[in-house]
Amino acid sequence: MIELIPQEQMKAEFVRILAKHGFSGERADECAAIFTINSLEGVYSHGVNRFPRFVEYIRKGYVIPDAVPSLIHNTGSVEQWNGNLGPGPLNASFATGRAMELASQNGIGLVTLANTNHWMRGGTYGWQAARNGNVFFGWTNTEANMPAWGANDYRLGNNPFVIAVPLENEAIVLDFAMTQFSYGKMEAFSFEKKPLPYHGGYDREGNITTDPGEILSTRRALPIGYWKGSGLSLLLDILAASLSGGLSTHEISRQESECALSQVFISVDLRMLVNSESIEKTVRNIINDLKDSVSVDPETAIRYPGENVVKVREENIRNGIPVNSEVWQKILSL
Amino acid sequence: MIELIPQEQMKAEFVRILAKHGFSGERADECAAIFTINSLEGVYSHGVNRFPRFVEYIRKGYVIPDAVPSLIHNTGSVEQWNGNLGPGPLNASFATGRAMELASQNGIGLVTLANTNHWMRGGTYGWQAARNGNVFFGWTNTEANMPAWGANDYRLGNNPFVIAVPLENEAIVLDFAMTQFSYGKMEAFSFEKKPLPYHGGYDREGNITTDPGEILSTRRALPIGYWKGSGLSLLLDILAASLSGGLSTHEISRQESECALSQVFISVDLRMLVNSESIEKTVRNIINDLKDSVSVDPETAIRYPGENVVKVREENIRNGIPVNSEVWQKILSL
Repeated sequence: MIELIPQEQMKAEFVRILAKHGFSGERADECAAIFTINSLEGVYSHGVNRFPRFVEYIRKGYVIPDAVPSLIHNTGSVEQWNGNLGPGPLNASFATGRAMELASQNGIGLVTLANTNHWMRGGTYGWQAARNGNVFFGWTNTEANMPAWGANDYRLGNNPFVIAVPLENEAIVLDFAMTQFSYGKMEAFSFEKKPLPYHGGYDREGNITTDPGEILSTRRALPIGYWKGSGLSLLLDILAASLSGGLSTHEISRQESECALSQVFISVDLRMLVNSESIEKTVRNIINDLKDSVSVDPETAIRYPGENVVKVREENIRNGIPVNSEVWQKILSL
Repeated sequence: MIELIPQEQMKAEFVRILAKHGFSGERADECAAIFTINSLEGVYSHGVNRFPRFVEYIRKGYVIPDAVPSLIHNTGSVEQWNGNLGPGPLNASFATGRAMELASQNGIGLVTLANTNHWMRGGTYGWQAARNGNVFFGWTNTEANMPAWGANDYRLGNNPFVIAVPLENEAIVLDFAMTQFSYGKMEAFSFEKKPLPYHGGYDREGNITTDPGEILSTRRALPIGYWKGSGLSLLLDILAASLSGGLSTHEISRQESECALSQVFISVDLRMLVNSESIEKTVRNIINDLKDSVSVDPETAIRYPGENVVKVREENIRNGIPVNSEVWQKILSL
């Protein structure tokens, strides 16, 4: 059963629980706001549905509520920070803010976090930067959960990668993992006994398949673009570990849990460019051209990344955030 | 028939032809070197095989041999340049060098080129930066040659994207276009009456297919990762046009030829990081872990992006660069 929870109520519950688990008032509020916005904007898997696991990670000591990032090194436009195993969303939001501050000085800023935790929904930081007039690039490494192209065993992470640009008062936000389909998505298709819409991995005979059950059993999920996504995942991990001085996927995977991640945040301040006055028009014209596409299905308009977020946000503000009753009861009991 | 041309001979021919077409001595040498290295390293499509078309573009006035980039704007760590329709490889190599210079000052540098030309092989600039101790990100927009996800007509470019990092004296270089297979590749499969190894686009009935002939007739090539590569292509074009102030894909496509492109070059100087001494080891450990993968085909080792380049380069240095006789005769006649 699905309940519709008003965003204020959801956030108040998250604040209550975080305060009970060692978050100071302001930090409980900020962290609760991120989990609520992720849910409000339709990314339930990294919002309300993930919240119980986040609390579990606090209890187990993987996430340290009052730990804040400490500056290790500054080169002018690059800063390397230690996340000190603090809450991933707070660390990532802080790093995004720092990247924007550096960008406001010299045009571009790059901030790294070593030793941080899962940032939940990467797009959140893209929205944060883009709605403040910045271009954003960000990525995180993860534990190994994807075979390299041509391999059977997990050596690569799905390493989500985010790019965002302002679009008037909103943003265009691309937020994608390196696996074609997430395990959560494949489990949902498998539960409904439906094939995936496109090839998503390999079956037990080593054939490429749309059968989610087969892929869940072989754990051979496809990287996007086959060898291309495999290469991109590898590079994102190399960059995250090299630029931050933190752990890489193979080191993260040897821990008892997925923590102490490495992340990169790059921001470019569009206000500093010579063409700053015309960028809004440039972006709008590109989107208008995209929208002029001849759609294969005349009922379905061609969308840009993040477009649906605005629609879902409005619906959920109006109607409440849809939450599985069991999940909500679990949260109320925390 | 294939001829094997020693690299010195190939470069000398290119120098001769470029000098005849308005390149000064030094610029003829540098441009010839890039076309030769692209060929030496196995990217014939953007080396020797492309050279006749490059000369044609000079003759038609799309590429202006003696045009050099001019600085439009500097924000400290970001520079916006006008490529003045100069030779794409020379402009791109210059911009890569400037990005490295900026990075040597503040840790990171971003350089944009508006109004430039086809850079041929993007990986070339990744190798240039990475072999000088820098991380590199670079991309270019192109004319429209790929439908957006869900569309029938071309609105997006295949916008090649390059990421590179140093690996001891060599580099790890990922250089990929947003279409799963290039048209050149699909034409080769079609010529040999072979199916593509994976889905590459749509047939005339609107079904996803591995039939290269069908895709060549519908021109509906697949973006990598379906909607993900479509989104990435869109964002790369938005960024190229917004950050450079130059043309976007829809504007480029309205010209009589693919010129006046927009490009972005980002460099991070690894020597400036607090962990600079340990980065080589970090990268090597990640590669070693990748190489420990259990390969699906025990005969085939798992490779990192750019690994094959070193092997091909050595072979071609030893044996000469393989060139189709007709192409070589054409070049000799220029």
